[in-house]
Amino acid sequence: MREDIDPPALLRAMFRAAIEAALPARCVPPHLPKRPRGRTIVVGAGKAAAAMAKAVEDVWEGPLAGLVVTRYGHAVPCRRIEAVEAAHPVPDAAGQAAAENILAAVKGLGPDDLVLCLISGGGSALLALPAPGVTLDDKRAISKALLRSGATIAEMNCVRKHLSAIKGGRLAVAAAPARVVTLLISDVPGDDPSVIASGPTVADPTTVDDASAILDKYRIDAPQAIRDALSETVKPGDPRLARVDTILVATPQMALERAAAVARAAGITPVILGNAIEGEARDVALVHAGIARQIAVHGQPAPPPAVLLSGGETTVTVQGPGRGGRNAEFLLALAIALDGHPCIHALAADTDGIDGTEDNAGALIDPDTLARAAALGLDAKSHLAQNDGYGFFEALEALVMTGPTLTNVNDFRAILVTPGGSDGA
Amino acid sequence: MREDIDPPALLRAMFRAAIEAALPARCVPPHLPKRPRGRTIVVGAGKAAAAMAKAVEDVWEGPLAGLVVTRYGHAVPCRRIEAVEAAHPVPDAAGQAAAENILAAVKGLGPDDLVLCLISGGGSALLALPAPGVTLDDKRAISKALLRSGATIAEMNCVRKHLSAIKGGRLAVAAAPARVVTLLISDVPGDDPSVIASGPTVADPTTVDDASAILDKYRIDAPQAIRDALSETVKPGDPRLARVDTILVATPQMALERAAAVARAAGITPVILGNAIEGEARDVALVHAGIARQIAVHGQPAPPPAVLLSGGETTVTVQGPGRGGRNAEFLLALAIALDGHPCIHALAADTDGIDGTEDNAGALIDPDTLARAAALGLDAKSHLAQNDGYGFFEALEALVMTGPTLTNVNDFRAILVTPGGSDGA
Repeated sequence: MREDIDPPALLRAMFRAAIEAALPARCVPPHLPKRPRGRTIVVGAGKAAAAMAKAVEDVWEGPLAGLVVTRYGHAVPCRRIEAVEAAHPVPDAAGQAAAENILAAVKGLGPDDLVLCLISGGGSALLALPAPGVTLDDKRAISKALLRSGATIAEMNCVRKHLSAIKGGRLAVAAAPARVVTLLISDVPGDDPSVIASGPTVADPTTVDDASAILDKYRIDAPQAIRDALSETVKPGDPRLARVDTILVATPQMALERAAAVARAAGITPVILGNAIEGEARDVALVHAGIARQIAVHGQPAPPPAVLLSGGETTVTVQGPGRGGRNAEFLLALAIALDGHPCIHALAADTDGIDGTEDNAGALIDPDTLARAAALGLDAKSHLAQNDGYGFFEALEALVMTGPTLTNVNDFRAILVTPGGSDGA
Repeated sequence: MREDIDPPALLRAMFRAAIEAALPARCVPPHLPKRPRGRTIVVGAGKAAAAMAKAVEDVWEGPLAGLVVTRYGHAVPCRRIEAVEAAHPVPDAAGQAAAENILAAVKGLGPDDLVLCLISGGGSALLALPAPGVTLDDKRAISKALLRSGATIAEMNCVRKHLSAIKGGRLAVAAAPARVVTLLISDVPGDDPSVIASGPTVADPTTVDDASAILDKYRIDAPQAIRDALSETVKPGDPRLARVDTILVATPQMALERAAAVARAAGITPVILGNAIEGEARDVALVHAGIARQIAVHGQPAPPPAVLLSGGETTVTVQGPGRGGRNAEFLLALAIALDGHPCIHALAADTDGIDGTEDNAGALIDPDTLARAAALGLDAKSHLAQNDGYGFFEALEALVMTGPTLTNVNDFRAILVTPGGSDGA
C-alpha cells in the first residue's frame, strides 16, 4: 500500500470507479452498432433508460427517433428521443401508455432498419402493457400481491411476462424483420438477459404452466380472467428472434472489476467475494466481518493490505422505526461485529445513489466509528435494533452522498484491511 | 483436480482431517512439558477434558494424579486421572463438587511441582464453583437468564468469572508456586485463552464493573446477594501467574489448515474464508452460495477446482417444529440458494460430532440434492421453514455421522466447486 493513500479516500475512489463503470455515457457508446441503411429507432425502459438514451444521442451520427420510459425523477433532457416517466415498482397508466407507444414505434419496420433497445433495472414495472383481457388494475393487483408474497424477482417476472403484450421477447417479435440490438445494464444476480426488465427482446424459457404454478404456490388470488389471459412467451430458437443481439454493457461484476483495478493501482490486493451476494444485511455483515478478521489475523484469503469487494443486494427485515437502507444497516452491523478493529475500514453503498429511501448512497466506517458514536451518546446496537443506520451515520457525518447516479448495478461493498497487527481477533 | 477423486469422498476426507487435527491423542502429546522434579497433577474441564486426560496418561512417563470434569456422556476410561461428569450448559452439583476437588488438588503444591491444566469448550459451565455468598442455584439462575438474554458468550463468561471461586485466573493462583501448563482446545472466535472455559489459569482484564454493567444491560434480575458477591478476578501482570504457560493445542484455524492441506494434496485450491464466521445459518449460507458461484462463474477469489473452507458457529432462530442443528440448516439453505448448480458440492458439520441435539455431525449436499428430494416428495423450502434440516437430509440418506468425537473446534464447512461451465450463475 502506498504511504500517501488514506483508507476513506481509497474506498470512495473505488466506489466512484464502480459507478463510473456503469454510467451510460461511458458504457453505452463502445457497444453501439454501425449506422444502418434504414431507420434507427431507440426504445427502452428502466431506471437508466433516459441516461442511456442521452448517451446514444450524444454520439450517434445519423437520424434517430424513439421513446424510452424511466422512473419518475430519472428523466434527463433528450433532444431526439422522447423520455417519459412512469411509476415503479407498481406500474401506472403512464407506463402502459409508454409501452403502447414503444410497441407502435417498432411496428412496420423493414430489414434495413435498426431498433436500439436500452434496458436497465426497473424496466419490468415501467414497461407494463397488459395482455388482451387483462386490465392495468389487474396487473397492479397481481404485482402488489406478488411483492407481498415472498416470491422471488424471477418468479414475479415469470408471471408478469405471461400477462404482458410486450415482455418475454414480444417487443423483438413486434420489431421483426428489423435488426434489434439490446444494450443491458444489469442489476440482477446472474445477469440473465431474460430476467432483466423481463426480457422484452429475449426468448423466455418459462411457460404458462410455470406462471400458473407460481400463482398457486404463493396462493395469489387471481381471478379466472387473469388465469385465462396467461399467454405463451417467445421461446428460445424462435426464428423471429434471429436478428436480435443482446449485449451486457454494465454489470455488477464489471463495476467490481473496475474497483479492483483502483485497489491494485494503490498496491492493495482486491478479493472479489461475489457480485451477487444476498441475505439479511446484518448477517451478511457478520460473514464479511469474519472474512475481514481472517485477512487481518491469518492473511487469508489474501494478506493485508487487501480489500474485500462484493456486490448484490441484501435485504432488511424491518423491525424498528428507524431510517436507512440496506447498506447503512450492513455497515452498522459490520461496525458492531468489528468492534473497533484497528485495521479495518469499509464503505457500502447503492450504485444508484440511493440507499433505500433516504438521500444517501451509503456510508463509511472506520476503526473509531463506535468510539465516536459513544462519545456522541449513540449506542450502535440500539440503532441497529431500530433499523436506524441512517440516523447513526448522519450523526457521525459518515454518510456517502452522490445523488441519483442514473444507473444501477446494485450494491457495492468494500472492506479495506490494512496491515498492523493481529489483535482484535 | 485428480481424476480419481469424487467430491463427497474428498469433502469427508477434509472433515476427517479437521477433526483429527483436534483429537486430544494427536494434539496434546506434542505440547507436554518435561517431567518435573516434583509431582504432576492433572486437572481440567471441558467437553474434551477426559479425552485430553487420557492422551496425557497414554504418553506420560512418571507419576501422575488428578481430576478432570467433562460433560455427561463424554468421559473416557482413565487409569490414573479421575474423570467425572457434570451438566452443561447449566451447571449442576456434580460440577461444583468437581471444581472443589480440583481446587483442593492443586493446593499446597511446591515450586518443583507441575499442574497440567486441560481446558476445552464447555469448561465454563462444567467448572462451576460459586464465590462465597453465592449458591449454585443462584449461579444456575443467572446462567439461564444470561442464556435467554441474548448476551454474547464473552459477556456471559465475564459475569460467571466474577461470581466464581475458580475462574478468571483463580485456579492458577491456588496452584502457585507450582508451575502451571495449560493446554487449550479452542472453540471460541479469536481463541482468547481468557475466554475459553472462562480462563481458570489466565489473567482476566474484565472487572466487577463490567460484570455489573452486563447484568444491567440485559436487565438480569440479580438479587443483591449476587451483586455483593461479584469479586475481582486476577488481573494481567499479577505475579502469581508468573509461572503459568498457556498453549493452544487445537483451534478452528488449525483444523481448517489441516483440511486445506488435504485439498491441496488433491490438486484443489483451498480458500479459507474465516475460522470464526457467525450469523444466522440461512443467511450465512446465502453468502457462501454467492461466493461459490463467483468461483464457478468468474474464478474469484480462486479458479475452480477450489474449496471454500470456513469455521465458527452460526445461529438458528427456531421458528418451526423440525429437527436439526445449525449445520443441517446451513446446508438446506445452501442447497436452495445453489438451486442444483452442477459444479458445487458441500459438507457442513460440527467437529464435536453432534449437530445440535441430533445424532448426526452434519450432512452433505450435491448438485442433485433438490432433485432427489423432489422425487421423494420433499420440498426443501418447506423443510427450511420448519427448521427441519435433519428430517430432510435423513430422508435423502445424506447425513454425516461420526458419533461424539470427544473434541470440539466448532463448526466445519467445506464447499467444493469443480470446473464445468458457468451456467447457473
